[in-house]
Amino acid sequence: MTRHFRVLIDCPDEKGLVYKISKTFYNFGLNMEKNREFVDEQNGKFFMRSEVSGKFDPDALEAELKIVLPQHTTIKVVEPRVKRIVLMVTKESHCLGDILIRHEAGELEAQIVGVVSNYDTLRPLVEKFEIPYIYVSHDGLQRAEHEKSILRALSSFGKIDYIVLAKYMRILTPEFVNRYKERIINIHHSFLPAFIGANPYKQAYERGVKIIGATAHFVNDNLDEGPIIAQDVISVDHAMHWQQMKSAGRDVEKIVLAKALKLALEDKIFVYANKTVIFD
Amino acid sequence: MTRHFRVLIDCPDEKGLVYKISKTFYNFGLNMEKNREFVDEQNGKFFMRSEVSGKFDPDALEAELKIVLPQHTTIKVVEPRVKRIVLMVTKESHCLGDILIRHEAGELEAQIVGVVSNYDTLRPLVEKFEIPYIYVSHDGLQRAEHEKSILRALSSFGKIDYIVLAKYMRILTPEFVNRYKERIINIHHSFLPAFIGANPYKQAYERGVKIIGATAHFVNDNLDEGPIIAQDVISVDHAMHWQQMKSAGRDVEKIVLAKALKLALEDKIFVYANKTVIFD
Amino acid sequence: MTRHFRVLIDCPDEKGLVYKISKTFYNFGLNMEKNREFVDEQNGKFFMRSEVSGKFDPDALEAELKIVLPQHTTIKVVEPRVKRIVLMVTKESHCLGDILIRHEAGELEAQIVGVVSNYDTLRPLVEKFEIPYIYVSHDGLQRAEHEKSILRALSSFGKIDYIVLAKYMRILTPEFVNRYKERIINIHHSFLPAFIGANPYKQAYERGVKIIGATAHFVNDNLDEGPIIAQDVISVDHAMHWQQMKSAGRDVEKIVLAKALKLALEDKIFVYANKTVIFD
Amino acid sequence: MTRHFRVLIDCPDEKGLVYKISKTFYNFGLNMEKNREFVDEQNGKFFMRSEVSGKFDPDALEAELKIVLPQHTTIKVVEPRVKRIVLMVTKESHCLGDILIRHEAGELEAQIVGVVSNYDTLRPLVEKFEIPYIYVSHDGLQRAEHEKSILRALSSFGKIDYIVLAKYMRILTPEFVNRYKERIINIHHSFLPAFIGANPYKQAYERGVKIIGATAHFVNDNLDEGPIIAQDVISVDHAMHWQQMKSAGRDVEKIVLAKALKLALEDKIFVYANKTVIFD
Repeated sequence: MTRHFRVLIDCPDEKGLVYKISKTFYNFGLNMEKNREFVDEQNGKFFMRSEVSGKFDPDALEAELKIVLPQHTTIKVVEPRVKRIVLMVTKESHCLGDILIRHEAGELEAQIVGVVSNYDTLRPLVEKFEIPYIYVSHDGLQRAEHEKSILRALSSFGKIDYIVLAKYMRILTPEFVNRYKERIINIHHSFLPAFIGANPYKQAYERGVKIIGATAHFVNDNLDEGPIIAQDVISVDHAMHWQQMKSAGRDVEKIVLAKALKLALEDKIFVYANKTVIFD
Repeated sequence: MTRHFRVLIDCPDEKGLVYKISKTFYNFGLNMEKNREFVDEQNGKFFMRSEVSGKFDPDALEAELKIVLPQHTTIKVVEPRVKRIVLMVTKESHCLGDILIRHEAGELEAQIVGVVSNYDTLRPLVEKFEIPYIYVSHDGLQRAEHEKSILRALSSFGKIDYIVLAKYMRILTPEFVNRYKERIINIHHSFLPAFIGANPYKQAYERGVKIIGATAHFVNDNLDEGPIIAQDVISVDHAMHWQQMKSAGRDVEKIVLAKALKLALEDKIFVYANKTVIFD
Repeated sequence: MTRHFRVLIDCPDEKGLVYKISKTFYNFGLNMEKNREFVDEQNGKFFMRSEVSGKFDPDALEAELKIVLPQHTTIKVVEPRVKRIVLMVTKESHCLGDILIRHEAGELEAQIVGVVSNYDTLRPLVEKFEIPYIYVSHDGLQRAEHEKSILRALSSFGKIDYIVLAKYMRILTPEFVNRYKERIINIHHSFLPAFIGANPYKQAYERGVKIIGATAHFVNDNLDEGPIIAQDVISVDHAMHWQQMKSAGRDVEKIVLAKALKLALEDKIFVYANKTVIFD
Repeated sequence: MTRHFRVLIDCPDEKGLVYKISKTFYNFGLNMEKNREFVDEQNGKFFMRSEVSGKFDPDALEAELKIVLPQHTTIKVVEPRVKRIVLMVTKESHCLGDILIRHEAGELEAQIVGVVSNYDTLRPLVEKFEIPYIYVSHDGLQRAEHEKSILRALSSFGKIDYIVLAKYMRILTPEFVNRYKERIINIHHSFLPAFIGANPYKQAYERGVKIIGATAHFVNDNLDEGPIIAQDVISVDHAMHWQQMKSAGRDVEKIVLAKALKLALEDKIFVYANKTVIFD
């Protein structure tokens, strides 16, 4: 039976890589349906993502690629599949609601296995869609204690591919983040690196900018400094107070977050040097 | 003879301002062709820009408005006129060239009375358009000395309405800036407040952003922190090295600078609280 | 008690209108919080929208304005209120879902009193939100008969301010449209006037455009030719087949439709000469 | 000596193409610096553009590729070189001026060998840059006669790679167009296919659109229907009369035209089925 796979290769650059890879594909009788490469000459890095189809054993393909490619190569041969995601939220519903609607429409390569929140506010919305909602109050808890409860909640959902911070307004500890390296996607409500930290719309209003934006990124140890996946902007003017900017910004936030999530679910993102290579 | 004027009013907000102003216009037999107002409720400020026409004495109008409006009101009754501008440049020609072409086409309400540069590189381009070019090398000079020479060059051009820093790559001293308060327009090659300072494209590349931009602003004492007039952005991706971002960014820079300059020439900008109110 | 009103004035242009209107406001002791005007010189038309507050009788204000303003003036003095809207849909959920989420979050000045569809597909989504869903199949019916059934469904919802065609894929008859003049908002999945009619994404793909868009407009007698309220676009490239354009286009469609709906709900749209004047 | 080449391949799709091509590159000892492919599954077409470097004979490479690739393959192995272009203009200077400034800055892989116009208006601007300007009035001439004179002017410039219609406001005959198949680039001042033909800004104004645009395309037999290379848009509103739209549109026109020209000069465009495949 013909199967479809995504092959992701990340290795040191050298002459003949495309030849060696495409020869391997050819020898396995594969059809290359889509192909993207990028050579970072400064860093001597090669990235490739191919969509291939054929009747073949993916493990054998991976083994063969390992043999022909240089040392320190990362190879993923993955079959498109419904990934398991958890959403974390606080009180705002626009990003959550947008993902719920896309999920319901079957637009995402994902199943939302649960929602975790530090408030109980969004439970009614989530439960309309028959998705488990776990409320983990941070009230009176140290950050570490609170995260322990969250981890317990997460583990109740079984295997998780990605955690989506859909306006989760708490900072996560490095310990938490490192458990899910390059698997936590956050939406920051500013055009990073402008306006890091709290209330970026207020900061933007006070600085008098004429454009505001949103940034979806993987979360790493440093607040708002992880690898950027997607960004977009909208125009604002002097007549908008920061609450209005916040309201206008919601539409950008939800679109940018959904875009980043789709890229992750479709295995279109490489991460290196705190940056992303995206083959969209 | 019917004359056209722009009336700009900036005053403390109170009830009845539009009534008092429009009544004054009416009493003077003026036609209000265009009208824009903005009330900043937080700061209790009122801004209004009207385009009026009629047969009237502008000084009398201004005097009458002074009487009916609150204390601490700033009133400008200005006739559209060709403003006198000086461009300051270093070595890059894209912003300069763009303004020269617009000037030549009569697109700007301005006469370029001269160009000053710390290099002699752009002289041939400027002299094609029969515009005086003064080269003031900074070589071996203290900043204050160099600026003294520049001020001498500027004074040789007579009255100056605006100085346009069309990729002038030197920092100006507060002394210099304060001589031309809200009359120096700079183009910064980033989406401020992201990437303040030197080589913003390299900073943007290293941060891995997906969008870059340009910002035109009035220059004040603090580098890259003056009131923002206009901003715009373009998309970039991982495949662009910073030199390519720089090259792609040129088009945004020149369009944003020209837009800001036009707004200034057409008396469409109010400045307060380090921000701009723009009636475009 | 202080009340807030929106005053919308649409009249032949003449000298002194702002004076007469602001004087009337002043005499009624009103505070003008926001003000926008537009003079269309070609057509001799004047439009004004003010947000005013005070302790006053709106009917008396309207009567007084009628006296001081020219003949053929249209005046609306309206209090912000939750408007009653009906959504009409076919099978696609992205616009519907987006409005449901905004509605649930209290983001709209509206109550969705019902949803009508020619399919039963979207019932489960709508009923999650406890909103009545009426399925009116067009199967085996003449257009006029089908519309009669729809009208019956609509009348069951009581008074309706706006009908939102949130991807309702049937053409409405002039009879239907004329019952709800300037009260039916449609989203067309192209950048009108490009690609009028069926399957605009396929048309766009075949033409090889590099940008696609969406248009929200009031519906009039002629298909896709009503007054445009809002438009937006996204970039596409040769690698996108029309199904992918369609999928990418959904995000623009829903944002543009929501934007148009908000403008209507907030009484920010004037219609004349098959165009809109929008004070946003 | 190491040389750099661009290899462009356009052929029927079949399994193993990337393998065969990259193997040939490998056998020639080439380094693949950049690589883009596109498979149009509907039409069974394969496109590839590679930037390669090495010490090799380009004719031998081309011959070898011909052997390994299917019948009906088009192969170009081209060395980056300064292409010879002619600009055709009427009276507006914004696109012309923009290209002159880029040319002067060495930003284009091109030499402007001459400018041809049906008016003498822009001669002073062009001659500032020491570029030949030939004025070919259409006064009193049949279209065919006029074009004969233009062809004579063009032939005086020697070999021409591309003709750029930088706001040349006359329609060219199919005979003329066919002499320069896929080598004439036009800028149309609308977001095609909206507003084909004369005065698109007036059409846009009358339709009441909220966004206007510009389209750069190769010229073919049918007015405004050639393959689109680049498009961009800007927002407009009810307050802009069509002359203001025209003025605002100039900035988009010049940026879009320059973008399309750069793509052509850098051999980044394939044309088929009246569409373009662009590897930017």
